[in-house]
Amino acid sequence: MFNYKVISRILGILLIINGGFMALCLPVSIYYWETDSVSLAISSAITLACGFLLKHLARNNKNKDLKKKDGYLIVTSGWIVMSFFGALPYLISGAIPSLTDAFFETISGFTTTGASILNDIEAVPRGILFWRSLTQWIGGMGIIVLALAILPFLGIGGMQLFVAEAPGITPDKLQPRIQETAKRLWYIYVGLTLTEAILLYLAGMGAYDAINHSLTTMATGGFSTMNASLQGQPAAIQYIIIVFMFLAGTSFTLTYFGLKRNFTKIIKNEEFVVYLLFTLAITVIVTLTLLVVTDHGIERSFRDALFQVVSLITTTGFVSADYTQWAPFLSVLFFILLFVGGSAGSTAGGVKVIRHVVLFKNSFLELKRQLHPSAVMPVRISGKAIEQNIVYNVLAFIMIYILVFLVGVTLLSSMNVDFDTAFGAVATSLGNVGPGIGDVGPVDNFSGMPMAGKWLLAALMLLGRLELFTVLMLLSPHFWKKR
Amino acid sequence: MFNYKVISRILGILLIINGGFMALCLPVSIYYWETDSVSLAISSAITLACGFLLKHLARNNKNKDLKKKDGYLIVTSGWIVMSFFGALPYLISGAIPSLTDAFFETISGFTTTGASILNDIEAVPRGILFWRSLTQWIGGMGIIVLALAILPFLGIGGMQLFVAEAPGITPDKLQPRIQETAKRLWYIYVGLTLTEAILLYLAGMGAYDAINHSLTTMATGGFSTMNASLQGQPAAIQYIIIVFMFLAGTSFTLTYFGLKRNFTKIIKNEEFVVYLLFTLAITVIVTLTLLVVTDHGIERSFRDALFQVVSLITTTGFVSADYTQWAPFLSVLFFILLFVGGSAGSTAGGVKVIRHVVLFKNSFLELKRQLHPSAVMPVRISGKAIEQNIVYNVLAFIMIYILVFLVGVTLLSSMNVDFDTAFGAVATSLGNVGPGIGDVGPVDNFSGMPMAGKWLLAALMLLGRLELFTVLMLLSPHFWKKR
Ligand SMILES: [K+]
Ligand SMILES: [K+]
Repeated sequence: MFNYKVISRILGILLIINGGFMALCLPVSIYYWETDSVSLAISSAITLACGFLLKHLARNNKNKDLKKKDGYLIVTSGWIVMSFFGALPYLISGAIPSLTDAFFETISGFTTTGASILNDIEAVPRGILFWRSLTQWIGGMGIIVLALAILPFLGIGGMQLFVAEAPGITPDKLQPRIQETAKRLWYIYVGLTLTEAILLYLAGMGAYDAINHSLTTMATGGFSTMNASLQGQPAAIQYIIIVFMFLAGTSFTLTYFGLKRNFTKIIKNEEFVVYLLFTLAITVIVTLTLLVVTDHGIERSFRDALFQVVSLITTTGFVSADYTQWAPFLSVLFFILLFVGGSAGSTAGGVKVIRHVVLFKNSFLELKRQLHPSAVMPVRISGKAIEQNIVYNVLAFIMIYILVFLVGVTLLSSMNVDFDTAFGAVATSLGNVGPGIGDVGPVDNFSGMPMAGKWLLAALMLLGRLELFTVLMLLSPHFWKKR
Repeated sequence: MFNYKVISRILGILLIINGGFMALCLPVSIYYWETDSVSLAISSAITLACGFLLKHLARNNKNKDLKKKDGYLIVTSGWIVMSFFGALPYLISGAIPSLTDAFFETISGFTTTGASILNDIEAVPRGILFWRSLTQWIGGMGIIVLALAILPFLGIGGMQLFVAEAPGITPDKLQPRIQETAKRLWYIYVGLTLTEAILLYLAGMGAYDAINHSLTTMATGGFSTMNASLQGQPAAIQYIIIVFMFLAGTSFTLTYFGLKRNFTKIIKNEEFVVYLLFTLAITVIVTLTLLVVTDHGIERSFRDALFQVVSLITTTGFVSADYTQWAPFLSVLFFILLFVGGSAGSTAGGVKVIRHVVLFKNSFLELKRQLHPSAVMPVRISGKAIEQNIVYNVLAFIMIYILVFLVGVTLLSSMNVDFDTAFGAVATSLGNVGPGIGDVGPVDNFSGMPMAGKWLLAALMLLGRLELFTVLMLLSPHFWKKR
């Protein structure tokens, strides 16, 4: 039934990549003459060894066919296995002594969520903090492949929709050209990360902080190396971060077209247009509110508004101000933004703009269908009629998203977490955003959550990151039936 | 385009009914020798006069055909017109001097919501309070007709689903037998109301309170004549209320079958079975929680739990204890219950159990469909496959419900209402429940809401009561196009 040898091989390769990136942190640690070098070396060695072992186990496999079911299993177990091994540097160095906390911090990294249990980030050795930023960057890289190649192949929640536009990919098959496409998009990912790091450095940020922040921006991760996140940073730095957060939340396929100067593709892409206009509209509303409730003047209000709106819509989760103090209205608005999500095919988490577009169009059409029950009215995206079963799939995705959210809130509140906090923590974890409201607000962290709550939130991060179905599928007995 | 004459005629008849019921309050008022008799007489006279005038205007109409569009217009405008005229007794007597408050209280009555702006209910003259209870009872009567006959005919949100089971009704046509059916179900409504009033009286409640509470129980309305609602009432009275709330939240068609001793129909009705088991399951969870967090003992804990769970699931909204003080977990759980709603074809508001059943079944099927994309897997309710377009319709309904909820919360919070209160007030208004959380919790009222907020909540009550589409349709320009 399952092709365990191929699964083992792929998990092995993932661990080797993981261990390799860990080794990259060694020079950083050595450069700063810190004590954590040894623990990074040990973690990397263990991870590499296990990786090679797993790969070796599968050496005599002749059957290289992967079925859909294998795909679900690989994706979910891959993320979980990576997170356990990724926690080694925290545990061995003692930077995060508890397994629960270390696993939470790591899966929050690999899922690009950015929720943290660290009370004093600046006290953590720089080599370890660099690993922390790298987990997000690796996670972002994984997501690009996942969104472009694996999820559409698995038929998850309407991801076919978006991929129809990507070069060299058809929704039905994993074509040979996919490797080439992935490479091309990774070049963009790497290129944008370097560009942002250089710009941040030029704007006055230290080299170490500049690299770390660019790694976590492009992953829409939001881990910062500073306790205050980006509060109080100069305007230039905040604007640079805003631009790159927005790019990270844009489909990488579109950015590719942009670099090729194919701007009509961009303007005709309905998801992008909605993403852009929605971001601007909410920014205007928030700016106006800030002009009323604060006396910060127009530039500062606009920048604070734009930063927070882009940070939440792209699910990055950087913080430039404690926005929960601004006005009750903005708390509610920003809570709702936790459910938006950036574009499909970006590193952003959440529901994604394209699904909202399908949802809204279909809802309005339903009113029309009521008056003219016999007329056929398909949902159209970028001018093309969408197949009924894909629309159906998108609606089911959103419904399950809401159900998972409500189950999460109920479970978390049963651990004596209050109303606001439970709503905020679950929404921000499931949406891979990072900061929530209540006790897990933008200037707080998750260290005070009950232990069971941390495991619950970790599970929600994974569910959200893997577009629900990939993980939920494994929970159905039907999946494990031999056939 | 619209058949205004028939519309005018029907609105006239509605006002005549309205004025007639108002006149019924006169004897109550006179019996208690209260000063409000005159204001009731004037209100009734104005309402009757306007009713006869409207009916007279349509006297020479030969075209008696009603189209779908006329139906939408009649239902929505009917409820609004009734609410303006229904506010007259409050305004003229001075019991509620402000138009906003009086309209809020009246539409809260006619929509069977039961949210109140009265700070001291017991200070209001008894004739006026009787009118207040009657608005709910009339609203409940209206809903039975609406659910059984009008909404399925208009094709609203999958209501056809349930009506397929009702005697003498087909989803496609308003058949002549509908009048007979409506009458039969009204007899049940009246019969249950009388039975409950007698039982409450026998259990020791005063005759006046017994009648008022039975009127508002059967409407799943929840207006009480006592400031404390049903807190501190004897166990017998609370149990009687529980039983009748549950019956009021059960499809009246099923109750009809029950009276005819056709019990197989009941056991085979999937919505009823889910409604019953869900109520019991949640009651068990709440009872166990109460045993842990209070020291009230098992009977009291069970009764408090059952009362509150039934009150919220049936959208009645009676209060037997300040449940928001029990535990954060229960606040979250009860907040979620605001979205359940009783059975379709009952007087309960909210989303309704049947829609949740469709939603859940479809969501689980979607996971299976992912693995076997070519297999046809229809949603089955009570063993019968449901047409795809009805499932679609149900999903669209739930989506729009959530959208309206979020828009409501955003608007209300922009009026400086805090997070919990905004969530609670909007959920309870849209679901026609009554009590919320935060500042509009079970022992609070809506008098402190901002004025614009009261109109917003009134609109949400109407939207929820008329199953969204009926009202939203009128907001689309498409609806008003001549054709
Ligand atoms: K994030
Ligand atoms: K109610």
